[in-house]
Amino acid sequence: MTYSAVNTIWVLLGAALVFFMQAGFSMCEAGFTRAKNTGNILMKNLMDFCIGTPAFWLVGFGLMFGSGSALLGTFDPLILGDYSHILPAGVPLWAFAIFQTVFCATSATIVSGAMAERTKFSAYCIYSAAISLIIYPISGHWIWGGGWLSQLGFHDFAGSTTVHMVGGICALIGAKILGPRIGKYDKSGKPHAILGHNLTFAALGVFILWFCWFGFNGASTVGMDSDALLERAGLVFFNTNLAAAVACCTTLVVTWVRYGKPDVSMTYNAALAGLVGITAGCDAVEPLGAAIMGLVFGIAVAFAVEFFDKIAKIDDPVGAIAVHCVCGALGTLLTGFFATGVSTEKGVFYGGGFHFAGVQALGVVAVAAYVAVVITIVFQVIKHTSGLRAEPADELAGLDISEHGLLTAYAGFAMQPDTVTEDGAAEPVMVSGEVPVAEAIPVKRVESFDQTVPKLTKVEIICKESRFEALKKAMTDLGITGMTVSHVLGCGMQKGKPEYYRGVEVEVSLLPKIQVEIVVSKVPVRSVIETAKKVLYTGHIGDGKIFVYDVENVIKVRTGEEGYDALQDVE
Amino acid sequence: MTYSAVNTIWVLLGAALVFFMQAGFSMCEAGFTRAKNTGNILMKNLMDFCIGTPAFWLVGFGLMFGSGSALLGTFDPLILGDYSHILPAGVPLWAFAIFQTVFCATSATIVSGAMAERTKFSAYCIYSAAISLIIYPISGHWIWGGGWLSQLGFHDFAGSTTVHMVGGICALIGAKILGPRIGKYDKSGKPHAILGHNLTFAALGVFILWFCWFGFNGASTVGMDSDALLERAGLVFFNTNLAAAVACCTTLVVTWVRYGKPDVSMTYNAALAGLVGITAGCDAVEPLGAAIMGLVFGIAVAFAVEFFDKIAKIDDPVGAIAVHCVCGALGTLLTGFFATGVSTEKGVFYGGGFHFAGVQALGVVAVAAYVAVVITIVFQVIKHTSGLRAEPADELAGLDISEHGLLTAYAGFAMQPDTVTEDGAAEPVMVSGEVPVAEAIPVKRVESFDQTVPKLTKVEIICKESRFEALKKAMTDLGITGMTVSHVLGCGMQKGKPEYYRGVEVEVSLLPKIQVEIVVSKVPVRSVIETAKKVLYTGHIGDGKIFVYDVENVIKVRTGEEGYDALQDVE
Amino acid sequence: MTYSAVNTIWVLLGAALVFFMQAGFSMCEAGFTRAKNTGNILMKNLMDFCIGTPAFWLVGFGLMFGSGSALLGTFDPLILGDYSHILPAGVPLWAFAIFQTVFCATSATIVSGAMAERTKFSAYCIYSAAISLIIYPISGHWIWGGGWLSQLGFHDFAGSTTVHMVGGICALIGAKILGPRIGKYDKSGKPHAILGHNLTFAALGVFILWFCWFGFNGASTVGMDSDALLERAGLVFFNTNLAAAVACCTTLVVTWVRYGKPDVSMTYNAALAGLVGITAGCDAVEPLGAAIMGLVFGIAVAFAVEFFDKIAKIDDPVGAIAVHCVCGALGTLLTGFFATGVSTEKGVFYGGGFHFAGVQALGVVAVAAYVAVVITIVFQVIKHTSGLRAEPADELAGLDISEHGLLTAYAGFAMQPDTVTEDGAAEPVMVSGEVPVAEAIPVKRVESFDQTVPKLTKVEIICKESRFEALKKAMTDLGITGMTVSHVLGCGMQKGKPEYYRGVEVEVSLLPKIQVEIVVSKVPVRSVIETAKKVLYTGHIGDGKIFVYDVENVIKVRTGEEGYDALQDVE
Repeated sequence: MTYSAVNTIWVLLGAALVFFMQAGFSMCEAGFTRAKNTGNILMKNLMDFCIGTPAFWLVGFGLMFGSGSALLGTFDPLILGDYSHILPAGVPLWAFAIFQTVFCATSATIVSGAMAERTKFSAYCIYSAAISLIIYPISGHWIWGGGWLSQLGFHDFAGSTTVHMVGGICALIGAKILGPRIGKYDKSGKPHAILGHNLTFAALGVFILWFCWFGFNGASTVGMDSDALLERAGLVFFNTNLAAAVACCTTLVVTWVRYGKPDVSMTYNAALAGLVGITAGCDAVEPLGAAIMGLVFGIAVAFAVEFFDKIAKIDDPVGAIAVHCVCGALGTLLTGFFATGVSTEKGVFYGGGFHFAGVQALGVVAVAAYVAVVITIVFQVIKHTSGLRAEPADELAGLDISEHGLLTAYAGFAMQPDTVTEDGAAEPVMVSGEVPVAEAIPVKRVESFDQTVPKLTKVEIICKESRFEALKKAMTDLGITGMTVSHVLGCGMQKGKPEYYRGVEVEVSLLPKIQVEIVVSKVPVRSVIETAKKVLYTGHIGDGKIFVYDVENVIKVRTGEEGYDALQDVE
Repeated sequence: MTYSAVNTIWVLLGAALVFFMQAGFSMCEAGFTRAKNTGNILMKNLMDFCIGTPAFWLVGFGLMFGSGSALLGTFDPLILGDYSHILPAGVPLWAFAIFQTVFCATSATIVSGAMAERTKFSAYCIYSAAISLIIYPISGHWIWGGGWLSQLGFHDFAGSTTVHMVGGICALIGAKILGPRIGKYDKSGKPHAILGHNLTFAALGVFILWFCWFGFNGASTVGMDSDALLERAGLVFFNTNLAAAVACCTTLVVTWVRYGKPDVSMTYNAALAGLVGITAGCDAVEPLGAAIMGLVFGIAVAFAVEFFDKIAKIDDPVGAIAVHCVCGALGTLLTGFFATGVSTEKGVFYGGGFHFAGVQALGVVAVAAYVAVVITIVFQVIKHTSGLRAEPADELAGLDISEHGLLTAYAGFAMQPDTVTEDGAAEPVMVSGEVPVAEAIPVKRVESFDQTVPKLTKVEIICKESRFEALKKAMTDLGITGMTVSHVLGCGMQKGKPEYYRGVEVEVSLLPKIQVEIVVSKVPVRSVIETAKKVLYTGHIGDGKIFVYDVENVIKVRTGEEGYDALQDVE
Repeated sequence: MTYSAVNTIWVLLGAALVFFMQAGFSMCEAGFTRAKNTGNILMKNLMDFCIGTPAFWLVGFGLMFGSGSALLGTFDPLILGDYSHILPAGVPLWAFAIFQTVFCATSATIVSGAMAERTKFSAYCIYSAAISLIIYPISGHWIWGGGWLSQLGFHDFAGSTTVHMVGGICALIGAKILGPRIGKYDKSGKPHAILGHNLTFAALGVFILWFCWFGFNGASTVGMDSDALLERAGLVFFNTNLAAAVACCTTLVVTWVRYGKPDVSMTYNAALAGLVGITAGCDAVEPLGAAIMGLVFGIAVAFAVEFFDKIAKIDDPVGAIAVHCVCGALGTLLTGFFATGVSTEKGVFYGGGFHFAGVQALGVVAVAAYVAVVITIVFQVIKHTSGLRAEPADELAGLDISEHGLLTAYAGFAMQPDTVTEDGAAEPVMVSGEVPVAEAIPVKRVESFDQTVPKLTKVEIICKESRFEALKKAMTDLGITGMTVSHVLGCGMQKGKPEYYRGVEVEVSLLPKIQVEIVVSKVPVRSVIETAKKVLYTGHIGDGKIFVYDVENVIKVRTGEEGYDALQDVE
């Protein structure tokens, strides 16, 4: 037999598992972002794979594995050439091709998370194609295709650099060029937490990724027909798992100490940090080395997430940069220190001197620089042609509706208002100076309940969700100290542009609105009304309505105060 | 050794993956239907497998693989017979039996999606058993059991026809006999979109199915012990993946052009269309052929979904007919055109003439006709005995509650009202003509509505969620017999302890509160207030407020009573 | 070659699948508990694995597999010793070590479900470590490490006792020591159903577990290089699947008969019961035996869940005790009856007498007693030092916020109030006697805001969700151009038919209703009322109420119109 059954089974099993990482990334990224962008992020995660697959078949595979030169493979559309120089022993071409295709798609899919919730879908399709067509295959050729880095002895077993750091660098540059999501940083540059909408999906995504990593790292032996390979596969499984587990324990402790409580989503991120980091050297280190490396990744990811969020001010909704870029590079470098010599040169800590570590560092720097330059060009070209970032109004409304005409990914669920607003709107038209509070219409005391207490009035405001934050701020400035907010549906004649669901027009007659109830006595009713009008006015249909009701009495439970006094709270 | 280790591993791995398709179908079908039917659809997806497994063991396997005749196998309960004539080389009987069991269950599970949200659970159990006991095994015998179609050279590698089209035909007939869901079509026959309740589950389902398809198609080599089989397995993996990816790209473009925006759920459906379609010929075509076939499936599924929805007016909530029936048949037929001759006769495009394509067409038509006849009989028998479709009231209430006594699959989530109504109710009692608008009762400006009725007052209480039960109990004890409760957000100066999300402080200014509205007449307002104060008082910030409003009138719909009388209910 | 490629592949594939069980347990436990504890349960499921992995590496593996004595292995941190006496033929050490690590973690993860929603996170980390460090490895040594039970001929193929019953006993003792969740039992000891928050996640978890069980049981052959092993693997797959399927069918029937309707979550639980139960003897019984055993497990799980809930009054939110403890023990015992003699002594039903069954019983009792004693000590030490149970206030608020500072795992979703309260709060301060009902304040009628504007009136209609569309249409026909709709809960005396959740009656006192608010001026109030009455009237309880309020003013934001004019919109 020309081929080896066990090698081929191993490679194909790996291919299936690495494919399934797409599900893991999708769940993770969907879970860590907001519900209004769920359809969009799911679509991006599907399409990077679906675009990447034919792109790698048509161009990428040849560039990466064609014999070519030390810098570049060959142009071989449809993979018709001869790859016998690079095929693993006993593995048929198409088995190897599918295995490499799913690795390529993994690199591309990393970017969507860091750039989530604000990137145009069309732009995403273009740069995702660029990664699969050119960027990943070229640096991949250097490392895995027989290129110059592999000739120097650079060791990246399953792709800490080749796959993860390449994706992570693209994510870093992309998130920086895009700028943060609206509402992520206030004027003073202080970051605000924007919670992901479904932690269970995110956790499921992490478990799926971990599971698939046994294929990603394990099957990267690309053979199981010798004692050495079988021992290596066992070690790879054990090290991969151990590094991830130790990274989680470490981050658990780090967050417990720093925030006072163990942070759920950061600890889940740590699993990925450990997995990404150990990928380069999982065949080259012993379990003790893997455990220590896991500890380093666990610390690194927690501080890297904070660094990008608070200091670099690069908004990465899912932590992809900290995980894939930072830990990918770090894992490759640490392999130069922890390698025992079993499958590479010896690392620094095992008496191998700094040569190997130097090669590892050279590889990381070279690949990072190359990717940074090319992806910057790609993003800038997109930015200045078709556009990279969604319009602010579209971002606020959510990319589901604006990019895909999807009313909601969660039909039937009542959702809370998203309190993020446009920068303009978050700074409401300054009202306190303009509204003639002094000459506010004198509300005659009306009889009501008790002649001696001032008139009590309820003002009920129905407005768009997106204007709520501005309204709240304006009311607070006006001296309103309490309000009740609820999520209602406005039913009017107002019609939106028709949207399609599976080709069928969707009727929209109930639109989500915010209802704000304010009971006032000291603050003049007219001031509340005029302020609300100013803040809510856009001149478009759907600006809302204000209702005014008489109130007979108000009682504050904590103090027992009634009427006027009950409203003068600082609570 | 009698058996081959690699063949057995391959078949068992395939069995596990094909089993896991049940999870994919469950998530897909749950996600694409409404929340009120979630428990029901999950139960159907579980039970088709659980009923199908013993059914196939007791009857199906023998009918399908027993030597019997060209039309039928043998009756062999418990699989005790001799199957050496049909067992793949080197695979033990029980390994083959579990592999075939999970294929059978896949066919049965397809039907639940198309008939979702309106089929009685008992009826489902019966026809699902019929598919596993008889329908699937008989046509399966023709194709894979040594029957007449296999003797003619009909080629269906992993089951585009045998599994998917068989399920798809049952789905088509079933959905047609059932009729559409209430509210799907209006009187003029115009279809209305009924959005699925959770796109993330649906997307996850598609990813799971795609992952498992590597087992479905890949393991259908049922052997890995020769160069030819290993090459074939590699090609099968590559083709399967490529066809699905190209189908998605195609549907993306089709929906983008037709609806103005790329449709999320249709594009996800396209992945399944590509997978179903390529299944018959994934071993027989080259990658270029697989890509072109993927393109055809991507176009076909988009138009087929619209066709069944808008023209045939067959309501298929998940698109199962377009995916499994249409693309299953199409993929089998196209194999007759794109086969390169490597594992079958040559197809039309490779110089093989029309003989092979003709056999493929014959097989599709024969199986479709056979299945259509038998399943029609099954459905009609059920319809006229135990009943096929849920009662309209049950359908409106949701099958979770009516069929399983499950209040909700999503306890704790606030849900939006389902705006679908019974046909009768969707046409409300015509009122405009009957209500004497002209002679509408002149509403006198009032001194409250009527001097003779006792004063009516609304007490509105805003309190913490955790105190609600105590408040409810106290009010009941006080003689209050009705109240309206809603979930609101209280916005005050009150601040909680800062919390961290991924290392960033989370601002909390909107706190969840409960709003209770009570309208009283007999029970003194002051009693309600003082009771509420006592129950809610803790002395801490956030104890809540009580508002008092005048009410002009109350009408109880059931009795027509007004004012004081309307509140004296025991309802 | 020293090693066998197929054996190693088989063991590593099994390791990956058994790892993925963590995802299954996470989804199951998250889905069957409440949303406010989701982050906490996900974190526990992650950390038991992440703590267990290094714990087993440092201590557990040596204790379990070191040659030591019949009672205990050796202390061998970092797994540096010689394990050639116990390694399966042809499997490298690290491959075997990762395979055993994931089995250990499975045992630890079982406990979190039974003790969910009320256990302190720190306590969880400690006892989870204890299970992986000591408890599981010692009894594991007896059975799988060459210890005294294995010497007696005790047969537990893949761990019904070794893994599942060990975890199940810990769960039982833990849940008993912890006590029930607040609100689970009332003063009279009557159990109350506390619905899980996401049945779809729970169902997904079950499917993932079933899928992974093919690795758990199948790969426990730890070899595929002989005809006997290949036949056994096929049989294991078939039996595992059949027992689970039959258990589901059985529980379906049991719940259908007992509760009047087939119970969704109990039937899903039955799948796990079947899988746990067949695990001990899946290699030793024939399919007919597996089917009969599945039937027993299906009956046992339904009654065991009820027994622990209603009679033993041990609160197990996910049914872990019934599944893992009861069916784990039962499956081990039944193996002594159904074993055919192919891989063990013959069982009672196959003419083997009671010796083998006696050994099985001895093993179950010995392991149960040992685990019960040790885990009781562990729990008591934790209870009296750092504390085992969360504070009542933390439990009520949810462990997400109190233990992890996570505001919600479902940001953006509107949630319903959790109606469970502290025991104290559920008994409100008795008020009826104290409030001076007689001297209620007389309220005088008041003039409205402005005599010259037409009277403005708000009509508030509370109705059933299913009547809303009809009401909306009727109001639109009447000339109403705007309304505000919200989702409220109606609290009345009205009772529904009792429904069952996992065998416990579910009380419904808050029924979902729609509240429609319409402010009218031109359209006569009486027309609105009469129309609403017509549309809503059915004569049944729950038809709804209509409230009428005076409105002082209305302002339309877009136009600035007030009063009558503000309502004449075509918006």
